[in-house]
Amino acid sequence: MKLPEKVIVKEVGPRDGLQNEKTVVATEDKIAWINSLSETGLTYIEASSFVHPKWIPQLADAGTVLEKIKRKPGVTYAALVPNMRGLERALKSDVDEVSVFLSASEAHNLRNINKSIAETYPVLEKVVKEAKSAGKTVRGYISTVIACPYAGPVSPKQVREVADRLFAMGVDEVSLGDTIGASVPADVDRLLDELLPHFDAGKLAMHFHDTRGTALANVVKSLEMGITVFDSAAGGLGGCPYAKGASGNAATEDLLYLFHQMGIKTGIDFHKTLEAAKQIEGVLGKPLKSKQMEIYRSEGGA
Amino acid sequence: MKLPEKVIVKEVGPRDGLQNEKTVVATEDKIAWINSLSETGLTYIEASSFVHPKWIPQLADAGTVLEKIKRKPGVTYAALVPNMRGLERALKSDVDEVSVFLSASEAHNLRNINKSIAETYPVLEKVVKEAKSAGKTVRGYISTVIACPYAGPVSPKQVREVADRLFAMGVDEVSLGDTIGASVPADVDRLLDELLPHFDAGKLAMHFHDTRGTALANVVKSLEMGITVFDSAAGGLGGCPYAKGASGNAATEDLLYLFHQMGIKTGIDFHKTLEAAKQIEGVLGKPLKSKQMEIYRSEGGA
Repeated sequence: MKLPEKVIVKEVGPRDGLQNEKTVVATEDKIAWINSLSETGLTYIEASSFVHPKWIPQLADAGTVLEKIKRKPGVTYAALVPNMRGLERALKSDVDEVSVFLSASEAHNLRNINKSIAETYPVLEKVVKEAKSAGKTVRGYISTVIACPYAGPVSPKQVREVADRLFAMGVDEVSLGDTIGASVPADVDRLLDELLPHFDAGKLAMHFHDTRGTALANVVKSLEMGITVFDSAAGGLGGCPYAKGASGNAATEDLLYLFHQMGIKTGIDFHKTLEAAKQIEGVLGKPLKSKQMEIYRSEGGA
Repeated sequence: MKLPEKVIVKEVGPRDGLQNEKTVVATEDKIAWINSLSETGLTYIEASSFVHPKWIPQLADAGTVLEKIKRKPGVTYAALVPNMRGLERALKSDVDEVSVFLSASEAHNLRNINKSIAETYPVLEKVVKEAKSAGKTVRGYISTVIACPYAGPVSPKQVREVADRLFAMGVDEVSLGDTIGASVPADVDRLLDELLPHFDAGKLAMHFHDTRGTALANVVKSLEMGITVFDSAAGGLGGCPYAKGASGNAATEDLLYLFHQMGIKTGIDFHKTLEAAKQIEGVLGKPLKSKQMEIYRSEGGA
C-alpha cells in the first residue's frame, strides 16, 4: 500500500465533540480535559467556539477556556469563529488559529448559518483578513462535502468552488467535513479526484463522522490518495444521539490504532489519548462509543 | 476505484453470531430468524454448528434447526462440522454445505480444537472426503489469519500453507477469519499479496470482526484486491462482551450500506435485513451494536 510515513491528527473534541452534548460541562472540566489532551502529543486542539452563546450555550465559556488552559509549546489551540464579533472575542483570548466555516450545500448553509453561501463569503472574507493581519493562521471548514441532510448528494464540483473561494481569501487549510457521516470510500475517491488536481494535498484535511461505520474506511482511502491531516474527537464524541444526521466524530483513539498498526507515525501517545477519553467520559457520565473505549470497558475497566 | 460489480454476502449470524451469546435462544426463535433471513435475498446462511453440545450448548439444537427451517430455493444452508461425528449429524439433517475449521496459529488451534494443526489435518481430511462423497460442498475456515490472541501476529506464509492443505483436501472455498478483529488494511494487503498469486480470488472469502472498528476498511481493501465473498452477521452479532478477543462480526446491514452506496450489487434487501436484525435483537433483549441499528434506535425506533 502507498501510505504516508506520518500524519497529523487534529483534535476537535472540545469543540465539535462537546457542542451538541446536552450535559453542560463545567468550565474547569473542559480546561482539565484540554490540559490532558495537550500532554498526549497532539499538536492541534480545537478548544472551543466563539459562535454566539445563544446558539451553542455549551461553549459560552470559550473565552475563559482559552485564557485558562495551560498552553503547551508546540500545540496550536484553535477556535471556531463565525463573524467579526466572534473574532474579536477570539483575539482577546489569544487563540493561535481561527476556523471559519460554511457548507457546500446551500440548504445546509441556510439552516446552519441563516445565510446563502454567496452571502456568507463576504463575512468570512472579512474575518480571514482581520485574523491574518492579527498574525493568526486560519482554517476553513466546509461541511456537507458528500451529502446534505436536507438536499441529498453534494457534487464534488460544488465543494471545489467553495474551497477555491476559501483559499482565495487566504485560508491556510481547508477541512472537508462529511457532516452526517454518510460517505463511503467511492465518494471520497470522487471528491478528492476533483480537488487534488487543484489544491495541494497538504492543505486539505478530512473530517469524518462515523454515523454508518465508514469513517476508518474513508480515512484509509484518503491516505492512499495523499491526504495527511485528519480531524477526530477523543472518545468519538460529537453529534446528538437523537438526530440521524449528527452522529459522533471519528474517534481519535480508533484513528491512532489504525495509523499505528499501519506503521504511520502520529507522534501521539495512544494510552494517554485513551486516558483523556476516559476523563471526559467520567465528566459526561455516559459511555463513549469509540471501539477502543468499548474494549476498555469490556475488559472490566469501567 | 477498481471495484467489482457484485459481491456475495454470507450470513453467519445464526452460527458465529449466536455461539457465544449467553442468552439461550429458543429453537423456534432461531428457526423464525433464519426464515426471515431467507427472505432478504441472502443466498448463503450458516444456520448452526454440529460441534459437540458440551462445547456450544447454545447450538445443541442444530439438527432440529436444520430440519425445521423453511428452505428457500437458491439459498445454501450450511453448518459447522468439527469431525466425523458432527458430519453424521449434519448429513442426517441434510445440510447443503458443511464447514470445517482450524486456526493458522498453532496456539489458537490448540486451545480451540485441542489438537496441533498437524493433528487436525487428518480429521478434516476425512470429513471433507465423506462430505464430498455425500454430494455436499465444503467450506474451510481458517481463523486467526492476522493475529492470535495467544501468540501475536500470524505470518501470511503460515496462512498460505494452511489454505494449501485445505484446497488439497478438496475444500471448495476458504474463509479467512480475523478472529479477534485486530487487522488494518495494511495487514489485509500483506495477506492477500501472499495468497492471491496461489489461489483463485473467487475461492477466498474474508471474515472480519469489528473489534477495533476496522472491518469496513478491511472489506474495502479486500474488494480492491479482487475479493468478492464476505462473511457477516445481522446486527453485528457475535463474540463475548467480556472477552477482548472475541467482539462481534462485521454487521450485515453495515456491509450492505457500504456495498450499495459504492454501487456494488448484493441482491440483498437492506430493509429486510434490518428487520431481521431487529427480530433477533428482540429475542436477545439487548441492543445490537451495528451502526445501522444505532441509527434505527436513535430515530426512536426502539
